[in-house]
Amino acid sequence: MNQEHLKRDLALIRAKSPLVHNITNYVAMNFSANALLAIGASPVMAHAVEEMEDMVGIASALVINIGTLDAEWVCGMLAAGRTAHKLGKPIVLDPVGAGATPYRTKTAWEIIHECHPTIIRGNASEIMALVDADIKSKGVDSSQSSDDAVDSAKQLALNTGAIVVISGATDYITDGTRVETITNGSPLMTQVTAMGCTASSIVGAFAGINPDPFEASLHGMAVMGFCGERAVAKKAAPGSLMINFIDELYEF
Amino acid sequence: MNQEHLKRDLALIRAKSPLVHNITNYVAMNFSANALLAIGASPVMAHAVEEMEDMVGIASALVINIGTLDAEWVCGMLAAGRTAHKLGKPIVLDPVGAGATPYRTKTAWEIIHECHPTIIRGNASEIMALVDADIKSKGVDSSQSSDDAVDSAKQLALNTGAIVVISGATDYITDGTRVETITNGSPLMTQVTAMGCTASSIVGAFAGINPDPFEASLHGMAVMGFCGERAVAKKAAPGSLMINFIDELYEF
Amino acid sequence: MNQEHLKRDLALIRAKSPLVHNITNYVAMNFSANALLAIGASPVMAHAVEEMEDMVGIASALVINIGTLDAEWVCGMLAAGRTAHKLGKPIVLDPVGAGATPYRTKTAWEIIHECHPTIIRGNASEIMALVDADIKSKGVDSSQSSDDAVDSAKQLALNTGAIVVISGATDYITDGTRVETITNGSPLMTQVTAMGCTASSIVGAFAGINPDPFEASLHGMAVMGFCGERAVAKKAAPGSLMINFIDELYEF
Repeated sequence: MNQEHLKRDLALIRAKSPLVHNITNYVAMNFSANALLAIGASPVMAHAVEEMEDMVGIASALVINIGTLDAEWVCGMLAAGRTAHKLGKPIVLDPVGAGATPYRTKTAWEIIHECHPTIIRGNASEIMALVDADIKSKGVDSSQSSDDAVDSAKQLALNTGAIVVISGATDYITDGTRVETITNGSPLMTQVTAMGCTASSIVGAFAGINPDPFEASLHGMAVMGFCGERAVAKKAAPGSLMINFIDELYEF
Repeated sequence: MNQEHLKRDLALIRAKSPLVHNITNYVAMNFSANALLAIGASPVMAHAVEEMEDMVGIASALVINIGTLDAEWVCGMLAAGRTAHKLGKPIVLDPVGAGATPYRTKTAWEIIHECHPTIIRGNASEIMALVDADIKSKGVDSSQSSDDAVDSAKQLALNTGAIVVISGATDYITDGTRVETITNGSPLMTQVTAMGCTASSIVGAFAGINPDPFEASLHGMAVMGFCGERAVAKKAAPGSLMINFIDELYEF
Repeated sequence: MNQEHLKRDLALIRAKSPLVHNITNYVAMNFSANALLAIGASPVMAHAVEEMEDMVGIASALVINIGTLDAEWVCGMLAAGRTAHKLGKPIVLDPVGAGATPYRTKTAWEIIHECHPTIIRGNASEIMALVDADIKSKGVDSSQSSDDAVDSAKQLALNTGAIVVISGATDYITDGTRVETITNGSPLMTQVTAMGCTASSIVGAFAGINPDPFEASLHGMAVMGFCGERAVAKKAAPGSLMINFIDELYEF
C-alpha cells in the first residue's frame, strides 16, 4: 500500500468532510457515526423511502448494512441503492449475517442485483455464503478463517463487478484478479460489536473522496487495522477498546 | 444567567427525577438516556401509537427528535405531541436535518403546526431552514454559524410561540424578543454524535421541573456547555469525551 | 450459590460461544451486544418475521425485551418465541415498563401466554405489575424496592412456570417455592441505561449452556453483580462504569 496515497486521502476526508449516508443496523449506528466523525467525515443515518432520493442526492457515498433488516428497511435500502447507482455514487454493501438465514442471503443478492454495489465488505462466512449456498454463518460472527474465503471473494468480485473485502486476521481486498492483504489489527477487535460494520462505513468515507474503490477499500481497512492495534496497545479489554479506537481514529 | 436558579433546578431534577419521554433517533437513544440518568432524570424511550397517550400522561416532558424519522414513527410523534399539548406538558422539538431533505423540513413543520412545541432546539442550518426554504443542511451537521441564524431564530420564535435555541460555538436562546447567549462548551463536542440531540433531552429534563421554558432552555444549554468543557479538559479526544461528559453530568 | 458451578458455566460460555438471539430495545442493543461478546457469547439482534424461525433455529437462547416495542416488533417477538418454545430452547422475557402503560402489560402477558418464557427478569415494579394490575411503573425505572416484590415474583413463577428474577439492591431468583438472593452489585448500576436489559441478555447466555434455568439465572445475576461492583470500585461515575463494566466482564 502506498502510504502517501493514504495520507492524501485522510487529508481529503478532513478537508472535504464527505457526507456518508448510512442505512445501517441499530447496534452499529452510534459507534459507526462516532467513527465517521472521528476520521473527519459527516455521517447521516436515514432510511425512510420518502427521503432516499434527496439524501443520496447530497451524499458522497452510501453504505447499506443489513444487520437488523426488515421488509420496510429493505425498501429504503433498495430505493437508496438504485438512486446511488443511477447517480454514479459509490455504494458499500455490508451483507451482515448472509448465510445465517435465507432471508439475509436473499436480501443481500437482491441489493446486489438491483443496486450494483461498488464495494462488498463482509467476514469470511458472509462472503463465502454469497457464493456457496451451503456455507452457514453463525449469526453475525464468522465461522470461517478469512484465508479460506479468498477464492469466494475473487469469484464474487468477478460475478458482481464489485471490489470485495474480507475482514479477518488477514484482510483481503480483491477485484477478482488482483489481491491485496492487510495484516495489522488485533483479534480483540472482533470482541467489540459493530467493528466490522464500522469498517464498512469507514471504507464508505474513503470511497466518498477517492474514485478508485480498490484503493478506497485498502485505505479504509488499513486505517481500521492501524487504529485498532494502537487502541489495543493502550488497554487490551473490549470496553476500553471501543473508546480508545475512536480516539485513535481522531488522532491518526 | 442566574447561577442560583440553575442550582435550584439541578436540585429539583435530582429530587423529583422527572420522567422525560423521548421519541428520538436510533443513534442518540443510548447516549441521551445515559445523559438524562446522569443528571438525575428518568428517561423513557417509546414510540408506539398504542401507548403514546398513556406514556405522555405519566411524563413530565416530551422530547421529539426527527433524526431517523419514518412514516410510522411520525405517527407516534404526532400522537404524543398532540396529547402533550392537550395536557399542557412541555414539548421540546429537535428538527434534525431540517433543510437536508424536504421530507424533514415538512415533517418538522407538521409537528410544529399540530403539537405546538414549547421549545425548538437545532443547529444553525436547521433553524434557518425552518424559516428560509433556500437554506440547505449538509445531512445533520450545520453548514452555518450560529451567529448567522439569530434573526431566523427570532422569527421562528415569533411565528410559533416557541422558545428557539440555536446551538453552536455560541448558543442563542430567544423568545423572539429577548436573546440570551451561552459561550462555554468546546468545538470538540460537535465531533461526538448525538451531542445536539442530547442537549434537547437535557433541556427537556429542565422543562420538566421549571415552568419557564426560557429559563429551562438556558439552564439545559449551560449544563451541556459546562460539562462539555470540563470533559474536554480531561482529554481532548471524542471517544473519551463521550464517556467523560456523562461522568461530568453526574458529578456536576 | 455454588462457585464451582459458576466457574464451570463461564468456561462453557467461553468454549461454546452460544448464539444468543436478542429481540431487544434500541437503547440496549449496543451495550447488550458488547456485554455478550465480553463474556464469550455470540450475540445476534434480529426481529424480522421473515427470519425468526431460521434465526431461532440456530440460536442457543432467545431474549425478548419489550423496551421499545411496537406492533410490528411484537409480531417478530411472538413468532420467535413460539418457535423457541416448540424447539425447547430457553426464552428470557424482559417485560420493560410493564405497569407503565397498559400496552406494555398486555404485551408482556401475550408473550407469556403464547411463548411460555423459561425465565422472566424485571425490576420490582415490572414484576409486581404483572401480578397486580394496580401497580404503576414510573416509565422503565422501578418505583418499588425489590424486597417488596418477592411475593409477586413467587406468584408469577407459580402462575407461569417460569423462573422469576427481580433485580434491585437485592436480586431475588425464585421458582415459586425456592428463593435465592444475590446482594452484590452497586446502586450506581441503575444510573447506566440498559443495565437491566443487559442482565437479561447475560442470563440468556447462561441459559444457552446450562439446562437448569434457576441456576442459569443465579449465575447470570451473580456475574452482573460481581462485575458491576468491580467496575464501580475503579471509578464511581456512570460513563466510566459503562466501559469498565464491559472490561470486567471480559476479564472475569
